[in-house]
Amino acid sequence: MIARVRVAELPTPALVIDTGAFAHNLDTMSAALAGSRLRPHVKAHKCTAIAREQAARGHVNFTCATPRELVGMARAGLDDDLLLANQAVDPDRLQAMAATGARVTVAIDSDATVEAAAAAGIQEVLVDVNVGMPRCGCAPGEAGGLADRARARGLEVRGVMGYEGHVVGLADRSEREDKTAAAMAKLVHARDAVGGEIVSAGGTGTYDINTTATEIQAGSYALMDTAYGALGLPFRPALRVVATVIHVSAKYAVADCGLKALGMDHGNPTIEHGDVWFCSDEHITFAPHSPLRVGDPVLVHPAHVDPTIAYHSLFQLADGPDVDAMLIDAWEIDLRGWSV
Amino acid sequence: MIARVRVAELPTPALVIDTGAFAHNLDTMSAALAGSRLRPHVKAHKCTAIAREQAARGHVNFTCATPRELVGMARAGLDDDLLLANQAVDPDRLQAMAATGARVTVAIDSDATVEAAAAAGIQEVLVDVNVGMPRCGCAPGEAGGLADRARARGLEVRGVMGYEGHVVGLADRSEREDKTAAAMAKLVHARDAVGGEIVSAGGTGTYDINTTATEIQAGSYALMDTAYGALGLPFRPALRVVATVIHVSAKYAVADCGLKALGMDHGNPTIEHGDVWFCSDEHITFAPHSPLRVGDPVLVHPAHVDPTIAYHSLFQLADGPDVDAMLIDAWEIDLRGWSV
Repeated sequence: MIARVRVAELPTPALVIDTGAFAHNLDTMSAALAGSRLRPHVKAHKCTAIAREQAARGHVNFTCATPRELVGMARAGLDDDLLLANQAVDPDRLQAMAATGARVTVAIDSDATVEAAAAAGIQEVLVDVNVGMPRCGCAPGEAGGLADRARARGLEVRGVMGYEGHVVGLADRSEREDKTAAAMAKLVHARDAVGGEIVSAGGTGTYDINTTATEIQAGSYALMDTAYGALGLPFRPALRVVATVIHVSAKYAVADCGLKALGMDHGNPTIEHGDVWFCSDEHITFAPHSPLRVGDPVLVHPAHVDPTIAYHSLFQLADGPDVDAMLIDAWEIDLRGWSV
Repeated sequence: MIARVRVAELPTPALVIDTGAFAHNLDTMSAALAGSRLRPHVKAHKCTAIAREQAARGHVNFTCATPRELVGMARAGLDDDLLLANQAVDPDRLQAMAATGARVTVAIDSDATVEAAAAAGIQEVLVDVNVGMPRCGCAPGEAGGLADRARARGLEVRGVMGYEGHVVGLADRSEREDKTAAAMAKLVHARDAVGGEIVSAGGTGTYDINTTATEIQAGSYALMDTAYGALGLPFRPALRVVATVIHVSAKYAVADCGLKALGMDHGNPTIEHGDVWFCSDEHITFAPHSPLRVGDPVLVHPAHVDPTIAYHSLFQLADGPDVDAMLIDAWEIDLRGWSV
């Protein structure tokens, strides 16, 4: 007989996935963007078990942010078509990706990254184009020349990518629409000069707005967070951190979920049935809406999922959204760190 | 013959300790607070190798924030006198601490935490007193009664603790002095009612101001960060994240050190020879002060050390502060996570 354990009984802090919301999110996205129209980004969840769920719904091409993520996906057999949507110049890590036997495509945006990829035995690339956010990507007008030089170096150029990261989080949908159109006009201009079939772009906030891209790199939709939750998307919050109340005062309570269990770049998390005051290394101080006792479980919703998950080693899977839900499985967060 | 490797050759992002600054910090603190006057907090570095360096300078009593930190310290033989300066109610983790064979003292601030400690076989406690920051700790006026009930439950009460966390980061020294005095007046009031020999308090920002405490729980002094660096303390920045430039544009450059390599609750890090614009999951965008090329190493100074370290598995040790320094050792960050 298997012991039945509730979310409330977990050692804390612990990441918990509500499998109902998670399945809803994956199904909703698959209905909107079937098969290769979505290239799920694994950086959000860093978990091959989640990637398998995405593959089971028809999305077998994946986006990665680090060589480790890509090599880990290949080792897990999720190797049909893996894109490193990032610049890499480390020869050892590029060679490790090339040696996986997976179909590997890497982004390039400079002669230095072309040379690094070619020297390491990478065969296929996308030209990364800056479509408005000051990060990686060449200027649209430079893309064609860079593609020519990549081909001269023996690389197969599959097309372009350009992430409208300055747009995906905008609160107003019509503003997201207008700015996505402007960004994609730049990317199409580059694609016309580069050639190839792939126009890879987009994120959770523009998944149904960006109809220019041939594939969308969304990742956060699977688990969501409070930042994306404010956009009115059809995806539900599926990830919480369960914590334990360790102190109760007249005006506030304290639970054991702090800065080392939460990505804080988007600000404080929210907490169910309470208002967050601040976080310390191992604590969250909050004003509860109704009386709590030491030992009570509470659920914290991270403001930003990606850097939250990178602090944890396991997802606990539960059959519902609250602390009385039963645990049904646990998945390793196996793509963390940077070693290949 | 051992291969000599420079900081600039490390796979990135990587945490690097400048051993000169690190030794200076430990020596400076030992000169100010000898032996048991300092109870170093291991939460800042989560590394038993660093704790050994602190012990080698005479500080053999340590402060921990999690049961995992305490159990890990005990297993490493650093078990003379370990304080869990935090509330714990998880029976398994409390029992794991009690079973280490170390001298273990835990903070208690409620009848629930007294009962949890006693039931798990913990023998010694400190009464945690709220001295002004809304987090754990009982009201000063409740400390005596709680100590009586702890003793009635069979626990040895060694004294009190009360962390002036609302004071340690204040920019103005005279304000730190005044507010430390006010906080410690509350703690002394509680100590008079509780009894015992220990008055445990303080942090890096008040290590030489808090002369009331019998022991100071400072941790950040060993490695420092940009927040504490602004206080004019005699400790030097000893921790950097080395990153690689992966993109260069006319007005900015991008390196591979982002939100998953940095604690962001104190805001953006700083970068040597540049001005930080923003961080993404795996990127830092910054305006360099002089031209950079793709592949160049850059050094990033975290705004907050503690949650930065919790993202990494190794400290690389270097014989100087810049990227040409030679690597001389690597230490595992072995107290991460929460499992015991």
